This record gives sequence, C-alpha cells and structure tokens, in this order.
Amino acid sequence: MSDLPARVEIAEEGPREGFQIEKGPIATADKIALIDALSLTGLRRIQVASFVNPRLVPGWADAEAVVAGFTQRAGIAYTALWFNRTGLDRALGFRDRLHLTGAIALSASEAFSQKNLNRNRAGQLAAMRAQTALHLAAGLKVTRLGIMAAFGCNYAGDIAPAQVVATVADGLAIAAEAGITLTDLSLADTMGWATPQRIERTVGAVRSRWPDLRLSLHLHDTRGLGIANAHAALRLGIARFDATVGGLGGCPFAGQPGAPGNIATEELVLLCEEMGIATGIDLAALIAAGHLAERIVGHALPSTLLRAGPLSAFRRAA
Amino acid sequence: MSDLPARVEIAEEGPREGFQIEKGPIATADKIALIDALSLTGLRRIQVASFVNPRLVPGWADAEAVVAGFTQRAGIAYTALWFNRTGLDRALGFRDRLHLTGAIALSASEAFSQKNLNRNRAGQLAAMRAQTALHLAAGLKVTRLGIMAAFGCNYAGDIAPAQVVATVADGLAIAAEAGITLTDLSLADTMGWATPQRIERTVGAVRSRWPDLRLSLHLHDTRGLGIANAHAALRLGIARFDATVGGLGGCPFAGQPGAPGNIATEELVLLCEEMGIATGIDLAALIAAGHLAERIVGHALPSTLLRAGPLSAFRRAA
Repeated sequence: MSDLPARVEIAEEGPREGFQIEKGPIATADKIALIDALSLTGLRRIQVASFVNPRLVPGWADAEAVVAGFTQRAGIAYTALWFNRTGLDRALGFRDRLHLTGAIALSASEAFSQKNLNRNRAGQLAAMRAQTALHLAAGLKVTRLGIMAAFGCNYAGDIAPAQVVATVADGLAIAAEAGITLTDLSLADTMGWATPQRIERTVGAVRSRWPDLRLSLHLHDTRGLGIANAHAALRLGIARFDATVGGLGGCPFAGQPGAPGNIATEELVLLCEEMGIATGIDLAALIAAGHLAERIVGHALPSTLLRAGPLSAFRRAA
Repeated sequence: MSDLPARVEIAEEGPREGFQIEKGPIATADKIALIDALSLTGLRRIQVASFVNPRLVPGWADAEAVVAGFTQRAGIAYTALWFNRTGLDRALGFRDRLHLTGAIALSASEAFSQKNLNRNRAGQLAAMRAQTALHLAAGLKVTRLGIMAAFGCNYAGDIAPAQVVATVADGLAIAAEAGITLTDLSLADTMGWATPQRIERTVGAVRSRWPDLRLSLHLHDTRGLGIANAHAALRLGIARFDATVGGLGGCPFAGQPGAPGNIATEELVLLCEEMGIATGIDLAALIAAGHLAERIVGHALPSTLLRAGPLSAFRRAA
C-alpha cells in the first residue's frame, strides 16, 4: 500500500526561521536557550542563525552572538543561512561550530523570484553560478539543490510538475558547469499551495527523471494541509523533512504576512512515531522546547499538539 | 494508487458542537446567524442544536429558540442531538423543521463510557436497546450506528481494530433484535488518537467484515493529524465526514478541556476541492461563516485556513 520509510530525519529550522518573522526583538539569550533545549531532544540537525543584512533583517543582527553562545552537542549538525559573500564570510568565522555546506536555490516560480529577489530566470541562474563559485572557492561542499515555490505561488498561481522539473534541470546544469554532482534535492512549499496529490505528482515527475537524487521536503502549514502533505510524502518513501518547533515561522516575503509557518516538528514526530517510523526524537522534550518557544515569542504557536500533549501520558495512565 | 471518491458529503456540526464548549453564553441570535450563514454555503447537512438538560449544559437552554429561529433552506437536512426521552420529545416538536432520525451510539472504550455516561458495556447495550425502542415508537427511522473512541481513548489507551469490530457487532445485534437494518456506520476519533495508519487498519477491519455498511468519519484535530487522517480516509474511498466550521468544538467530557476541536470544515473542503473531489460547497462563503463564528465566540478558532484564505484569489491575480 505504501513505502513508509523506517526512519525519518528532521532538520529543525525553528530558531532561524521562527524568529525572523516575530515582531518584537528576541533576546540573544532566548535564542540560545531554545537552541540548547532543542539540542537535548534527539534532533540531529538544527539551523541556528541567519547571516543576513542587519538593516534588512534587524532580528538577526545578533547572529554571531547566537552562534558563539549555544552549547555544542556531539552528533548534531548546527547549520546557518546566508545569501551573499558578506553573509558567507560571517559564517566562515564559525567553521568550528557550524556545519557549513553550499546549496543552489532556485524558485520554480519566476514571479516569486522577481518579487522576492528582483531576479528573473536568467538573473537567478547567474546569481547561483556566482554563488556556487563562491562556495567552492571557500572550500565548501555544494551538494544540495533547493527549489522554492515548488507546488504553487501567490504571484504565479499553480506550478506544474514540468516547471519544477525544468528548474531542477537548471540547477543540475549549474552544478555540471561547475564540475560538481548534487546529491540532495529539497522541494519547498514556500507559500502553502501543496496538497497530497500535488506532492505525489511533483515528486513522481522529479523522481522518474532523477531517481538517484535524495529528496527532502520543506512544508508550510499555511492552510491546514501541511501534515497531510507530509504523510503523502512519507507514503512515497520520503525520509527527510524540514520543520519548526511549534510551527514557528512563515515566510515574510510571501505577500501574506499573517500566514502560519512551517509544519510543526512535534506534529511530524507524532505522526511518524505513532506509525512506527523512527525519528530518534524525544517527543516530550520537543514539546517542552515548543512551550519554551511560546514563552519566548510571547504568544501561542500554531501547533495544536503543544496544547493537547502526546499520547504517552494517557497510555501510561490507562 | 487510491480510491479517491468523486464527491464528498460533509455534515456540519459547528453550531451544535462548537458552542457547547465555549465559556461565555452565546446569544441565541448569534447561533441563528451562524446557521443561516452556513445554510448559504452549499452544505447539505447542518446540526443546529442539542436538546440536553439545561442544568447540565446551560449553553443549550435555548435549543427551541434556535431551532424555531433559523431560516430553512430547501435541500438542507437540519439535524439535532438528544440523549434521552425528554430530549427526543423536545426535538419531536420540530418535525417540520428538523430532519429527525435515530441512531445507536456505543463507545469502543468501556472506560470512556464509564467516565462519560457512567455505563459499562452491559449498561451501554441496555441503554441503546431502550433508545432504539423509543426512536422506533416515535416513528423515527433508525439507520445509523456511531462508534465513539474508535481509534484510542484517554482512559483506555489504544483501541484495537478488533475492539471496534466487536462494538459494531454489538450495535448491529441491537438493531437485529429490534428488527431493523442499519445502513450507516460512523467511526469517531473522539479524543484525537487517530493516525492515517489507524484509520487504514480500523476501516479495513470493519469493511472486510461488513462491506455494505456506508462509512463516515468524525475526526478531531487534537494533535494536528486531523486532516492527514481525513486524507487517509479519502484514499480508502470514504466519502462522508463530520466537521465544524473553523474547527469549533472539542469534547468537554474527554478529560482534556483545552484540546482543540473537530477538523475544520473549510480545511476539509480545501483538501477535497484542490484534489478534484467535489463537495458542492462555496469555500469563500464557508470561510466567511468561519470568520462570523470567530466574532461570535470572541477568539480565533484553530483553523489556519481562516487566516490564510483560499488559493482562488491568488489564482485570479496571477
């Protein structure tokens, strides 16, 4: 009936993605406290900071202090985000604390790229050629391709699987020109257009063309379908997901500022663990980290599981 | 790959289920306004009131006024709930306005029945025999069996498919004794224990024993898996669901008062319509009714789609 994976790897993006959209300034110590709490849950990959222009994203002016401040735990890849040479140079100062790799990021929607980055398709490709050269020159491995707006776009409407296939081909061509081989492909539902059916169709189209690329999904829960989409992906054997604790986040550039954020890590963990798919994550510890995130941002987060709690306590009492 | 139905029927339970859990008194006029708004969305079945003891559930002391007050629209079955002869007699006063049918309701968890109704299994069966006789004597058709706690229970823990099968057999035996044939079976995830896998297993177990029973699901979104569970059911060809606009509701007797309510009707409609499954429901009108429900209860409801809005506006602008 399905190809459920035996084990799923979840990349936690809450500390980075979550705090960039919050209104008030988040204290550096609070960011560090959340990273440290997440480090004790069993997560193996945590994105901790964004090295972006502090004038454009004041909430990440303290990226260096955050990265310098958290407690490193063995076996965890702490990652960060950057978009240009300045950001990369800042990240390179933390080679001992961060797991630094390069990626090629393209939008399947030219309209989104135009609105978000003021780049048309040719501009995207040129920027990614330059970024790839920069990453390789800095000694970073470049193994990953990320496709934004892979399931639909607030500016372009529906995105056909063929558009995603064409965009993946663009990214692979950039890699080939640079003499490198990409192994990982991330499809992002940046603006919450995915449905289980679109997941099946787009993943199917990409896989039948490139069966060896390792797929991961970055899903948003903008319209309540996020966990259903994750389940559709699990059924296809997809075993890598991004998520944010509590459902922190949301894309500030998607023309929809009130839209909910990413799928909640703890809801994805519950889904997996209750179906016998290992995540290596302690759900109770993760929920506690979600409650910490709620105290930090000062409001309830979208995750319903944070309020209801896991099933284990009821099982023990039964 | 799946047996997605061509068309889905959604029974809206927001007006009845939603308001029983709210703290403040909800004005009769507001209840009527929500029913009238829902009547214009294309919904064909709306549960409008609960004829329960006003001392136990003061929020439904105005059931008669609500039922007398809404504007009947052709083609819509307006339903109500009751639990005993007094409630039935009150409902029977509205034969011209309500679609009155009898049902047999049993809990797959004896512990839940004991906590909720102070009845063990034998007590449940006796009560349902008496209720069936009462319904038949009143001239009501009895065609439906509802199984509560069909996927897990806060008091009993996991509920095996075999327990559900045994409970269905109990219900069918009551019907057979009374000389009637049940055609519809509703499985309720009363306390939010379902996963897509449990849906598949329990539905599979019930169907292989009774392939002719028409199945419907009553799902709660207690832990974020509600829409994923609905999708799993759609894949099995299940075409009948209960839902509440905005995700109104929650079970006040489940020992978990802060738990979120039912799956949101509009999220289920989005899921279906975006996958080409007809619902007959105008999503924009339904979302507007959800916003009305939020104004009535005075707080945000769990549905994320109420905040993000549907995709159609973006498609038109693209």
